[in-house]
Amino acid sequence: MMEADMESGRSYQERPRTFSTVRSKSSVPLAFRLLMRINPRALIILSLLVFSGVLYVGASTSPIVVFVFCICTLSLFFSLYLTKWVLAKDEGPPEMSEISDAIRDGAEGFFRTQYGTISKMALILAFVILGIYLFRATTPQQEASGLGRATLAYITVASFLLGALCSGIAGFVGMWVSVRANVRVSSAARRSAREALQIAVRAGGFSAIVVVCMAVFGVAILYSTFYVWLGVDSPGSMKVTDLPLLLVGYGFGASFVALFAQLGGGIYTKAADVGADLVGKVEQGIPEDDPRNPAVIADLVGDNVGDCAARGADLFESIAAEIISAMILGGTMAQRCKIEDPSGFILFPLVVHSFDLVVSSVGILSIRGTRDSGLISPIEDPMAIMQKGYSITIMLAVLTFGASTRWLLYTEQAPSAWLNFALCGLVGIITAYAFVWISKYYTDYKHEPVRLLALSSSTGHGTNIIAGVSLGMESTALPVLVISVAIISAYWLGQTSGLVDESGNPAGGLFGTAVATMGMLSTAGYVLTMDMFGPIADNAGGIVEMSQQPESVREITDVLDAVGNTTKATTKGFAIGSAGLASFLLFSAYMDEVASFAQLPFKEVDIAVPEIFVGGLLGSMLIFLFSAWACSAVGKTAQEVVNEVRRQFIERPGIMDYKEKPDYGRCVAIVASASLREMIKPGALAIISPMAVGVVFRILGHSTGRPLLGAKVVASLLMFATVAGILMALFMNTAGGAWDNAKKYIETGALGGKGSESHKAAVTGDTVGDPFKDTAGPSLHVLIKMLATITLVMAPIFL
Amino acid sequence: MMEADMESGRSYQERPRTFSTVRSKSSVPLAFRLLMRINPRALIILSLLVFSGVLYVGASTSPIVVFVFCICTLSLFFSLYLTKWVLAKDEGPPEMSEISDAIRDGAEGFFRTQYGTISKMALILAFVILGIYLFRATTPQQEASGLGRATLAYITVASFLLGALCSGIAGFVGMWVSVRANVRVSSAARRSAREALQIAVRAGGFSAIVVVCMAVFGVAILYSTFYVWLGVDSPGSMKVTDLPLLLVGYGFGASFVALFAQLGGGIYTKAADVGADLVGKVEQGIPEDDPRNPAVIADLVGDNVGDCAARGADLFESIAAEIISAMILGGTMAQRCKIEDPSGFILFPLVVHSFDLVVSSVGILSIRGTRDSGLISPIEDPMAIMQKGYSITIMLAVLTFGASTRWLLYTEQAPSAWLNFALCGLVGIITAYAFVWISKYYTDYKHEPVRLLALSSSTGHGTNIIAGVSLGMESTALPVLVISVAIISAYWLGQTSGLVDESGNPAGGLFGTAVATMGMLSTAGYVLTMDMFGPIADNAGGIVEMSQQPESVREITDVLDAVGNTTKATTKGFAIGSAGLASFLLFSAYMDEVASFAQLPFKEVDIAVPEIFVGGLLGSMLIFLFSAWACSAVGKTAQEVVNEVRRQFIERPGIMDYKEKPDYGRCVAIVASASLREMIKPGALAIISPMAVGVVFRILGHSTGRPLLGAKVVASLLMFATVAGILMALFMNTAGGAWDNAKKYIETGALGGKGSESHKAAVTGDTVGDPFKDTAGPSLHVLIKMLATITLVMAPIFL
Repeated sequence: MMEADMESGRSYQERPRTFSTVRSKSSVPLAFRLLMRINPRALIILSLLVFSGVLYVGASTSPIVVFVFCICTLSLFFSLYLTKWVLAKDEGPPEMSEISDAIRDGAEGFFRTQYGTISKMALILAFVILGIYLFRATTPQQEASGLGRATLAYITVASFLLGALCSGIAGFVGMWVSVRANVRVSSAARRSAREALQIAVRAGGFSAIVVVCMAVFGVAILYSTFYVWLGVDSPGSMKVTDLPLLLVGYGFGASFVALFAQLGGGIYTKAADVGADLVGKVEQGIPEDDPRNPAVIADLVGDNVGDCAARGADLFESIAAEIISAMILGGTMAQRCKIEDPSGFILFPLVVHSFDLVVSSVGILSIRGTRDSGLISPIEDPMAIMQKGYSITIMLAVLTFGASTRWLLYTEQAPSAWLNFALCGLVGIITAYAFVWISKYYTDYKHEPVRLLALSSSTGHGTNIIAGVSLGMESTALPVLVISVAIISAYWLGQTSGLVDESGNPAGGLFGTAVATMGMLSTAGYVLTMDMFGPIADNAGGIVEMSQQPESVREITDVLDAVGNTTKATTKGFAIGSAGLASFLLFSAYMDEVASFAQLPFKEVDIAVPEIFVGGLLGSMLIFLFSAWACSAVGKTAQEVVNEVRRQFIERPGIMDYKEKPDYGRCVAIVASASLREMIKPGALAIISPMAVGVVFRILGHSTGRPLLGAKVVASLLMFATVAGILMALFMNTAGGAWDNAKKYIETGALGGKGSESHKAAVTGDTVGDPFKDTAGPSLHVLIKMLATITLVMAPIFL
Repeated sequence: MMEADMESGRSYQERPRTFSTVRSKSSVPLAFRLLMRINPRALIILSLLVFSGVLYVGASTSPIVVFVFCICTLSLFFSLYLTKWVLAKDEGPPEMSEISDAIRDGAEGFFRTQYGTISKMALILAFVILGIYLFRATTPQQEASGLGRATLAYITVASFLLGALCSGIAGFVGMWVSVRANVRVSSAARRSAREALQIAVRAGGFSAIVVVCMAVFGVAILYSTFYVWLGVDSPGSMKVTDLPLLLVGYGFGASFVALFAQLGGGIYTKAADVGADLVGKVEQGIPEDDPRNPAVIADLVGDNVGDCAARGADLFESIAAEIISAMILGGTMAQRCKIEDPSGFILFPLVVHSFDLVVSSVGILSIRGTRDSGLISPIEDPMAIMQKGYSITIMLAVLTFGASTRWLLYTEQAPSAWLNFALCGLVGIITAYAFVWISKYYTDYKHEPVRLLALSSSTGHGTNIIAGVSLGMESTALPVLVISVAIISAYWLGQTSGLVDESGNPAGGLFGTAVATMGMLSTAGYVLTMDMFGPIADNAGGIVEMSQQPESVREITDVLDAVGNTTKATTKGFAIGSAGLASFLLFSAYMDEVASFAQLPFKEVDIAVPEIFVGGLLGSMLIFLFSAWACSAVGKTAQEVVNEVRRQFIERPGIMDYKEKPDYGRCVAIVASASLREMIKPGALAIISPMAVGVVFRILGHSTGRPLLGAKVVASLLMFATVAGILMALFMNTAGGAWDNAKKYIETGALGGKGSESHKAAVTGDTVGDPFKDTAGPSLHVLIKMLATITLVMAPIFL
């Protein structure tokens, strides 16, 4: 083994730079390649035909759907404009594009292998769902609507697969643009900071718009197809208020893919990062992204597959889950309150996100690059520029949100209800803003907490870790208070909206919470842009460093990178807040679903019952175990990287003097295969455990005469897991971000600066924070939504 | 400042070795001193009089109480024998007793200051409780029984104060014996390992027996006094089944004191330990407990005030809370099932713990020291000796538990019920054993997890921390599964016991869970002995090191110290398991209490209601925030110690060559005042937040027409906090123990041994683990029981 390595070490120049499977295939998926082969004119005609078909189906459903389709189509054109604009920029000198090619190869190769694995698992799961639905009993409503068992099974499976596919595309698009934008940003940084900023923002904006568009388009197409196909609302068939429940498969498909994408990508990016830092920075004392570090390409690949691809899938899934749950709740409420035309309440989320596309586009365009051509002046902080764009987006979102509520939620039964719901939306927008602000307070080194954390590094590694853990745990308090106030006030606004059910009880509470969630996500496009900006800037910095550009260029990318770190941390706060709210909504949908299926009232989940309490215990434990496995996957993989990098430094002593070239490909290959292997265990845990718990307690319940026990225990598992998941994710994201920035703060020269003992301790903290903030934390966002959708789809087996 | 320090540095020999307030007062509390002044004969006569009075009251209550009194009295005599035996041992050469005196002074001084603060807070809280109870409305039952509002107020306050006092005494006794036994163990280690082991075990046994005794005696005396005073069961007065509810004040007092004792002591011990290690071990490279380290005395003092005093108060409180909650549930069930003589069901927990005293005494005596007089032979592992004692205790406990169920729980209504309850007890005993085994698996370096953790140290500080965090989180899974199975199976055994209520529904489920909890705690005496053994052995090792004894003596104390680490870790698993179960029982008692007080049915806590869900969010957040503050208190205080120790090394360069003596007293004073200051914030959070949440939601509930909302939100807060607390405590205790032992494993010579890079990384892990396992973790045990008792006592303000 050792000898073989030595031998391959001698002939490293003959070997491909990245692992062989990457180079041997083209990096574009088959579907795209087929599309490209078609004659452009034929393609245009085909697109037009498809679009008119879709438009026709939409028009038969509701004019609102037509509106949504048009906005989505325009946004897609806008995103095409953004790509063209970004791709038109130059790729810089050959030494840059060479590095960029290596990154692209690594990222696309990993993406293909990873999504190959994921799609196989998705197919297996599709068959499981099909089996369950073919053998489940039908509900009386379904029988009344003539919806057969087989139809329902095919609908659910088709939605699941479409959701999975769209989620995959969302991930692919995020990665596709970032591996192309990174080198263009580096190249632009040689000319102008402003231009570099603009390229990174527009590239991020492209994938953000595509992701939001696909979520809205996907749900809208499914909705209108089912509407037309099933002849909804015609006599003897399904009611429109029941239609949204058929879409849950889409949400589950999306979250299923997002979970594995986030796990695999998160493990990849952080294992490479930790491994590279531990040997490079700590042992050898070379800077980050130094070309002498054999793990540096793997690290840069990780930014793309972990941060870009995974976050794209994550937010896609957030938006899809939130749209579907809000549609379900809107339908339920409209039915209870006997609202004559319920379509406004059901389609409201689609309209909100259509406006989201519009206002986010304006926000993205507001960041212009033409004003200067030199360094960013100290007054023009890039963070301030991004914040200004965010402010513009938020102001526009408030206006369009108000307009949407007046348009769609006005009903004669309760003429002022729309105003209450507009206020719910405002609650959501304020919540989003508060979340972003709180994350910034705890992770930005301009504020007290990170400064104290940096100070604790001066007494050693141990005190740094203790302080970081405390900081992370403490940082859960304010977001929880904010979300508590948001839930209660939105619920209360909904209850007092004037909408009452048949017996005169107020019925708008939960829909109020749903509207608040939509308010929170009503600037999702811009937030996602800020998020995608981070890894692109990070990569650009890496390319600049590796191609050994002058100091002035590095300074520009360093500033952009630091801003990217802050935006990444703040959007995570946003993501977990909206995930918690969406999960709470899906929980209500789950209770409705179970009640309608079991034909038994399912009004409460009583944690004073021992079995249900145990369900809660198991749910919270699931979060701890999942986080443990996600973190240890990074640790284990990082150890492999460390050993490989150490081996290369020992066997090729010339590396340190730039005389020998390190073997980047081996590190890429090691990280790729290890992260694919390691993502299976936590992912399987997340999918199997709620089903197993449900089935076990179903059997226990049936043998003790409590028919709903299984469903109730699962409900409790879901709620406890949601609560524990929110807290754990907040803890991990914030601690990780704070450690990272404490290190950066010391690197600005504080407390001894780079190379001091304080800095070493801070690097340890940063290393620990890596899997927290980029693997376990974001995976938990996806996990809690996945749990909510899996319980909805799998509900039949708990009864 | 600097100059003044320098000056005091020059004249350090004139200054007292420990901080001045300690030396100026005698170290024995006033009550004890008064007792000592009385003529011995008069004292004996007085004791006899008091005892006969107590016996008379007991006899008027129930013969079972007389039995309990007798066993407790005998056990007290047994504990006196153990003390005399331990104190009769020699204190070794003067250099040992000099160090021991310094430790004793520091510990007793801190104890006095700390308990002074705690007793002031307890008095304030007593007035608050008095106020609340004087203004609360009385329940119909109370009115029927002629129990006035004022009587109830005084009863509650008196129980609270007695509980607080007993908890304080439990802590004092633990510390009192350990500061005397430590030097005797060191001295004995010069002669024989077996003898040293025996002294440490018997000293631990003394405080364990006293702690259990006081819990049982206290509750029994209160119970019988109330019984006689209120004329229970006579016509027109209170029913015996309602009596246990009057005892909750005792549990609250106990947990209140235990919380602050654990917080203050936990912060003290770990701040000193971390501070001493960071400078001594890591920076200066001197061994642990080296006399040149200025923080070494503070570290040794910490073992006594943190581990001995605090754990004594912790387990006292566990036992008291569990006895009271089981008595309440026994009474409720007896009433529902119309059992003719309910006293057996109510007094059952007292009998179980009386037998606990007997079997634990046998277990303690089974560890004998006469067989050899040399080194412990490799076959005679001290851990094996302790385990053998545990096995004997468990076997006897199974027998006595079975006998107690047959004696007290036999009823003609359900002739086989006692057998079911005996099986519940067995479930509890098996659960305890499983918890001990699981903690051992995850924290002992004989097993895979710690070995892997040690291996991860070889790639650096960062991977060590990541691996430790993952290990800790993963270790929550098995205990949660065990406790889930225990809750459900004990509940099921109770339900099928044949006890039915008036309408024929099975009613024994919750009592079954209570019996399982008692089974779990039925060997509490022995477990506590094993726990107390740890810090005594640790201290003995410190004294041996500081007095520079030969290597062979150190080897003996090192072995004992390592065993103590394992027993400490395993008993923590035991403590958190029983705390979780006790909290679940108190939760049921709380629902009964609220229902009887509000005269409204309080059957369920439905987490689908937004406000109740928010209560759960807040409860889980409370755990995170509390842990954060507990950890950061250690971090902050440790930083102060580090700075002081560094200062001394710089200002007195002679320390390293033994030419100058370090100023131990300053470190002791710094740690003492800092830990008193830092314990207030988390403690106040724990006490104020449930009350604040209850009051806020009470107001919200009353304004929206839901009268029980406040009580229900608090119930949800309590349950979510319990679940999150169990998980967090398991995580922190196990991670801390594993880090500690991974370091010890490397110190045995593995992976490069002492001084290697792996060892440095492992020391970082150990440092991080310190506040986890000895401050935040154990404080969480106390917190979740304190939350359960505070909600019970404060229930009136939520309505």
